[in-house]
Amino acid sequence: MGRMNRMIINCLPLTDEERRAFRDATDGTDVRQEFTGVAAQRGMMGWKAVVPESLRESATAVIGNISPADCAHYPNLEWLQTWSAGVDPYLAPGVLGERTQVTNATGAYGQSVAEHLFAMMWSLMKNIPMYARQQNDNRWHDLGRALSPAGATVLVIGTGDIGSHFATLCKAVGAHTLGVRRDPSRPADGLDEMHGFDELDALLPDADVVAMAVPASPDTHHLIDGRRLTLMKSTAVLLNAGRGTAIDPRALARALAEDQLHGAGLDVTEPEPLPADSPLWKEPHCLITPHVAGGNHLAVTERRIIAIALDNVRRYAHGEPLANRRK
Amino acid sequence: MGRMNRMIINCLPLTDEERRAFRDATDGTDVRQEFTGVAAQRGMMGWKAVVPESLRESATAVIGNISPADCAHYPNLEWLQTWSAGVDPYLAPGVLGERTQVTNATGAYGQSVAEHLFAMMWSLMKNIPMYARQQNDNRWHDLGRALSPAGATVLVIGTGDIGSHFATLCKAVGAHTLGVRRDPSRPADGLDEMHGFDELDALLPDADVVAMAVPASPDTHHLIDGRRLTLMKSTAVLLNAGRGTAIDPRALARALAEDQLHGAGLDVTEPEPLPADSPLWKEPHCLITPHVAGGNHLAVTERRIIAIALDNVRRYAHGEPLANRRK
Repeated sequence: MGRMNRMIINCLPLTDEERRAFRDATDGTDVRQEFTGVAAQRGMMGWKAVVPESLRESATAVIGNISPADCAHYPNLEWLQTWSAGVDPYLAPGVLGERTQVTNATGAYGQSVAEHLFAMMWSLMKNIPMYARQQNDNRWHDLGRALSPAGATVLVIGTGDIGSHFATLCKAVGAHTLGVRRDPSRPADGLDEMHGFDELDALLPDADVVAMAVPASPDTHHLIDGRRLTLMKSTAVLLNAGRGTAIDPRALARALAEDQLHGAGLDVTEPEPLPADSPLWKEPHCLITPHVAGGNHLAVTERRIIAIALDNVRRYAHGEPLANRRK
Repeated sequence: MGRMNRMIINCLPLTDEERRAFRDATDGTDVRQEFTGVAAQRGMMGWKAVVPESLRESATAVIGNISPADCAHYPNLEWLQTWSAGVDPYLAPGVLGERTQVTNATGAYGQSVAEHLFAMMWSLMKNIPMYARQQNDNRWHDLGRALSPAGATVLVIGTGDIGSHFATLCKAVGAHTLGVRRDPSRPADGLDEMHGFDELDALLPDADVVAMAVPASPDTHHLIDGRRLTLMKSTAVLLNAGRGTAIDPRALARALAEDQLHGAGLDVTEPEPLPADSPLWKEPHCLITPHVAGGNHLAVTERRIIAIALDNVRRYAHGEPLANRRK
């Protein structure tokens, strides 16, 4: 790796102040930076990474989700920093050279996804999706009993960044929080107790809220199936912002139709998009959001992506190991 | 007031255990109790107070919202404990004798109303009412930018039981909370700062959330009018669970139609029910719930009503001044 003439193409939509911080991070080193991002992209859902062709050959690093097909045009690429959490397209064989490191923006999305889960929980507890829908009929009608997380038992399945942040929010409003994770000896912030997956069946009957934030894995396929749905309270709220396949959608539709649950909030479904003929669309106690919990829907997520990239620019310029490395 | 043969007709829907607690409260005194409530009414929205005619003459106290028209049939009534917060019908001239004290259940409803405000806030910040409505069309479509209360400035107008509880919830999830009350020298739990009504115009431009929980008063009529709506951020969320007349509904509909606000959550409207021709019904950024934030929609509200009554039974039996007295 040549120590001379390293150049980062920074495609982030930065403010002037942020650009200064990035420049300061490479100050006194051999690393130059070209800024190609447009600040006007801030607040927009999908950022576009633009790198002029003339810069591609000299680029030793790129910050931004460039097209995987274009990667071949970066002969000197040592490092790619994505603004996504997923980096699968860049890891496919032949896309990047052997020496190219890939780092991602894991950690930037936890607050956003956890808050979305929390908002779905409160909405369902107060029957807000049903009130919102009856507005279409100009209908002023009391839908009865509400629920509260105060004093409730919240079971969080998958206690990474998202699950831990969600549990912290629930604890802050008076809930008792139980976590389920592969290795229950590892604690996580916000969880009062930690249990293993083998204890799930014993925990479900006492849970007022079951929130799922499990990553993709064969073990979690239809983790919540018809049998486990029957173990849950008829007043329970089920939430999923991990991956759609963790819940059996037919069994869930049946359980909701038979009032086995108070409600379900799904930001992920099996499959996605949810097919038009799924009975879940019309189930009054089901709230569906189209995989929007993550993404850069919050300004804070954008700031965290930028902070992760800034930290790695500093590391790159000073020859330190990069953080969030995926390749 | 005769110290002999006092009798309370207790119409609360009590469990066996709760009845025992009420009996214990009068133990060793001259007070007898008749329990006429039906536990099966627990969890139902409107409790019915039933007093057999044969008991009315001997009743010196009633716990329950008996019909005001029937009050004339209780010649020996010293005390009426309502399970509502409002007692206006009992204070009308001629309904109760001069000596009859009236106590209410103020304080039982704060958590319920504050939580409903909190749920409306989160729902609007994450665009959940709009997602719930687009489910009707089986529509999987990203509605863009979300908001967060973390780091937000929440302005609470009216800082009694409800406003204070709501502010505490907001602080717990990372908001900075400002209160506006008649006497700003009186602090309230959950509020980082307290201001007077004369400072309202100066505070509105910085508020990310404006939550109203003001009691009925001529001063609060159209407190939020067209002029004040223009002072608010275009990303602000406006909430009302106090009384509907505190917001000018025409000005609000106009402001929402012109994207002057991110959204509004109304549990109270002017008038109620909201007329079928109000443009607010169809406004995508308006969430309307039909005055359900209070009432006994939460089990905890029922338990608090019962606790307030139990405390007063103890006081009545032992000749102490009653709490929550309104007459």
